[in-house]
Amino acid sequence: MDPLQRLLDIEEIRGLKARYFRCMDTKDWDGLSKVFAPEAIFDLREVSSLRNPLTGEWKPPYDGESAVHRGHANVLKMIRDAVEHRVTIHHGHMGEIEILSQDTARGIWAMEDVVVNAPGGEPINMHGSGHYHDTYLRLARGWAILTTKITRLALEV
Amino acid sequence: MDPLQRLLDIEEIRGLKARYFRCMDTKDWDGLSKVFAPEAIFDLREVSSLRNPLTGEWKPPYDGESAVHRGHANVLKMIRDAVEHRVTIHHGHMGEIEILSQDTARGIWAMEDVVVNAPGGEPINMHGSGHYHDTYLRLARGWAILTTKITRLALEV
Amino acid sequence: MDPLQRLLDIEEIRGLKARYFRCMDTKDWDGLSKVFAPEAIFDLREVSSLRNPLTGEWKPPYDGESAVHRGHANVLKMIRDAVEHRVTIHHGHMGEIEILSQDTARGIWAMEDVVVNAPGGEPINMHGSGHYHDTYLRLARGWAILTTKITRLALEV
Repeated sequence: MDPLQRLLDIEEIRGLKARYFRCMDTKDWDGLSKVFAPEAIFDLREVSSLRNPLTGEWKPPYDGESAVHRGHANVLKMIRDAVEHRVTIHHGHMGEIEILSQDTARGIWAMEDVVVNAPGGEPINMHGSGHYHDTYLRLARGWAILTTKITRLALEV
Repeated sequence: MDPLQRLLDIEEIRGLKARYFRCMDTKDWDGLSKVFAPEAIFDLREVSSLRNPLTGEWKPPYDGESAVHRGHANVLKMIRDAVEHRVTIHHGHMGEIEILSQDTARGIWAMEDVVVNAPGGEPINMHGSGHYHDTYLRLARGWAILTTKITRLALEV
Repeated sequence: MDPLQRLLDIEEIRGLKARYFRCMDTKDWDGLSKVFAPEAIFDLREVSSLRNPLTGEWKPPYDGESAVHRGHANVLKMIRDAVEHRVTIHHGHMGEIEILSQDTARGIWAMEDVVVNAPGGEPINMHGSGHYHDTYLRLARGWAILTTKITRLALEV
């Protein structure tokens, strides 16, 4: 693979993931829509479960297939339902992006997510950290998120 | 625009913003001075106000023109007055940097800022998050921050 | 130095530091092992001390030579002893990476580190922030961390 093109692709994917975080937290639904590929999959099975790092036990039990959201419309609806009426702060860190072919790539990002009450909104207070495990696809309009899965290091609700 | 030059410019601007955060938090005033262009503008109108994301209402009222600091000396003085005698922790994340021409660029950065008491200093405890919206100018010595504006997702004082 | 090669090196070092954080927090000891050069040095003298930014005084007293860990095996053992039975969250930010020669480089990273109880583990609750000051060496298998030193902005235990 051409090394310059590889760097250009990495830089574009870095900006793609930045738009994902920013559009979600600023409630920019048009911007967020462009981040995902048509066949996007968002795997939330581990997002609200936490594995005991000493025993390997999940608590509460690891979520099932219903926590895997498939297709662009379902992914967007899930995110919007989760964050629209809440103050959310999602920070990504230390991306590891690997270009696999001309049109496919994968990446891992450390992340911290905070969900708090919006003034007047329903009470919630969540603070977690973990990693995103993504794959990316190059569409005609540029790179997009094809699949994304969250794993946890810690979660306080 | 030459794609390699664009990547070199993005990398240099990434380092520029890193020096802004590091020099501010380590109180390196000489280093911080080099980060800003002579005509620098720092727009703090939204830094201590918070918009209710559900109603759009500002609380306390959105600050006026006095919160816009104009010129290198004024910008440096404002930052120094704000952080010199406090422990500050400013983290930037997920920069989106766009090169607009040979000598101009813009960028958005997610950020988290913490200001706490220095031992023996005045009591303060602030924790916020939001975004920097920057423009950059290439000077003879390299890229510098021309304008910067903070918007908020959350703020606790 | 060839500018494209410099960018490729910076990108590889960015991924190296990302693996350092991720492997430490996910307890991937094989992955962590590959991050360090054979002659690695990890300088922890300032990691549990804090300098009063107003007076310059260290509290507790700045640690001595015993806090400098020398050699790949000692560095790995120190990290493993410190984090293996705890939930740890290490985030790096805003890397400033400088390629010094074909095979040497240095970098500064802002960081935040959190150490909390693992369920069933010993009680601890630490939250700090500061900077990593690294040097890197290119080995036959790629870039590795040669020396790393932590300085602190804040520390709560």
